[in-house]
Amino acid sequence: MPELRKDPVTGRWVIISTDRARRPTDFAHEPEKKHPGAFCPFCYGNEAKTPPEILAYRSNGTAPNTPGWAVRVVPNKFPALGIEGDLGRQGEGLFDKMNGIGAHEVIIESPDHDKSLAQLDEKRIEDVLWAFRDRILDLKKDRRFRYILIFKNHGEAAGASLEHSHSQLIALPIVPKRVREEVDGCKQYYTLKERCIYCDIIRQELDAKTRVVAENADFVILEPYAPRFPFETMILPKVHESSFEEGQSKAYENLSKMLKLLLSRVEKVLVAPAYNLVIHTSPLLEPSNDYYHWHFEMMPRLTRIAGFEWGTGFYINPTPPEEAAQFLRDA
Amino acid sequence: MPELRKDPVTGRWVIISTDRARRPTDFAHEPEKKHPGAFCPFCYGNEAKTPPEILAYRSNGTAPNTPGWAVRVVPNKFPALGIEGDLGRQGEGLFDKMNGIGAHEVIIESPDHDKSLAQLDEKRIEDVLWAFRDRILDLKKDRRFRYILIFKNHGEAAGASLEHSHSQLIALPIVPKRVREEVDGCKQYYTLKERCIYCDIIRQELDAKTRVVAENADFVILEPYAPRFPFETMILPKVHESSFEEGQSKAYENLSKMLKLLLSRVEKVLVAPAYNLVIHTSPLLEPSNDYYHWHFEMMPRLTRIAGFEWGTGFYINPTPPEEAAQFLRDA
Repeated sequence: MPELRKDPVTGRWVIISTDRARRPTDFAHEPEKKHPGAFCPFCYGNEAKTPPEILAYRSNGTAPNTPGWAVRVVPNKFPALGIEGDLGRQGEGLFDKMNGIGAHEVIIESPDHDKSLAQLDEKRIEDVLWAFRDRILDLKKDRRFRYILIFKNHGEAAGASLEHSHSQLIALPIVPKRVREEVDGCKQYYTLKERCIYCDIIRQELDAKTRVVAENADFVILEPYAPRFPFETMILPKVHESSFEEGQSKAYENLSKMLKLLLSRVEKVLVAPAYNLVIHTSPLLEPSNDYYHWHFEMMPRLTRIAGFEWGTGFYINPTPPEEAAQFLRDA
Repeated sequence: MPELRKDPVTGRWVIISTDRARRPTDFAHEPEKKHPGAFCPFCYGNEAKTPPEILAYRSNGTAPNTPGWAVRVVPNKFPALGIEGDLGRQGEGLFDKMNGIGAHEVIIESPDHDKSLAQLDEKRIEDVLWAFRDRILDLKKDRRFRYILIFKNHGEAAGASLEHSHSQLIALPIVPKRVREEVDGCKQYYTLKERCIYCDIIRQELDAKTRVVAENADFVILEPYAPRFPFETMILPKVHESSFEEGQSKAYENLSKMLKLLLSRVEKVLVAPAYNLVIHTSPLLEPSNDYYHWHFEMMPRLTRIAGFEWGTGFYINPTPPEEAAQFLRDA
């Protein structure tokens, strides 16, 4: 008998088809193609092929927009939103619109063209996390923005158009729907219980252990109770923290360890799948609060989304999270 | 400058990248592959290869589960939900779950293996609509269900696993999130205005004409103001009606004409793309109301969904709906 499970934060129900539990090897996918020899604008020596850098962690003495960097942040050459101008909020009969104002940046995670984020040293992954933080703290000063999303598309099936490992940042003049739903769900729970719902989930999960993949002093890797996708996974700080960019330096070291562990095991268990990674953190106008708990969400792209999902916002997941957790624990 | 637009019903913002307006020919896609000669359980003579039929419109004198049908409805051989049993709603600490109870049926739209829904005669498409209605009216009697979704996956990229033209029906013990959001948005507007928001949208759109694809006496084909996907399109009854299954016979004739017109033009303009089609109708427990307006949603599968979309529920659409409407009007 399949099971219907409700995500406690957003109220979304999913179908876990426990009958036809899918093992990692059942998800056949094209291996991610490499294009050796193709020109790459993110490699050393090609710095002039991107817009000028906004931030770079560099060896002493190297000049901007030349080799010598470990992490490099540049504006997206084909931005989804424009950085200059006013919001110009206005109506059009009963419709609402505004100008497409925002920032769209690319975080080049390493000079090494052939290494995935999972394959970087922990120290290098920590640099990437610091770059995320630095960019959020800088863009936060712009009062037009309401939310900053960091996300990563790894592999063509996940929407990556360049294979050199990178993440993206989009600063938005509104709080996106999905984040709003999470924050509202957390607020509702807080009103009822005066506790953070993620703190309660972490407590219950660390007790039950069945959906825990790994933990260290500061972070825990969990399979959500009602995941939309097979092997959908979260990384959360164990102690309440509402914003990613408020994390302390020691915690980033431990976050880097957990991120490397998760991505390496996913590469191993699911044979280098395409995946998306996003950071969900508090909206910019409510940075420190007791109800929202920032986290990473990682979604391997293993299944196809069809009419049922688009029509309902309802997902059919063939892999129970308890089994996904087991595979990732044992890897 | 890109434009941010808000869907008036759900409150979801989308980015319309007016700068890089994409013409239909820019969406390169693999032509849908045919597998001639492969065994098909939906063809005449293979009726025994599906579970026994629930409903069929047949020539006089032909026996169930034999050739002679025009439309045939059977249980899905690999159902996402089970039809037998109780809901068994229960908690698991702070989580909620219930048994995966529901109906999952397949509507085989025609005996002709090689014809798409768009290629069927209007009379045959009308039969398919009647089959949808008959199945909803029957399943409505089951008090365990809260919502019935009709959807169609056309083409492999849209999630279809068999090429013989068919739709699916899923009856659910809950109202799915996306429908709940639409219904709640409509209720909010009704509380404010005492009018149906879709009725107001139809009035404004028929006046402005820019997003209208076609209309007849009973129905209108519209590009939504804030579509998530290029060429996302709606078909709505012009006069307020809250449930699809309450439609009258004359209206189904006109609905069939509009559906054929839309799908034929999409096949022509976008060169036979994969697409998803869903019917959004009122939840079963609130069938007749003044706030919700049933409709079809059609989404061609032309763009790839990546981390940004999964992370935010926010969509970047490269084709303004005014241009999509123009292409479909002129086809």
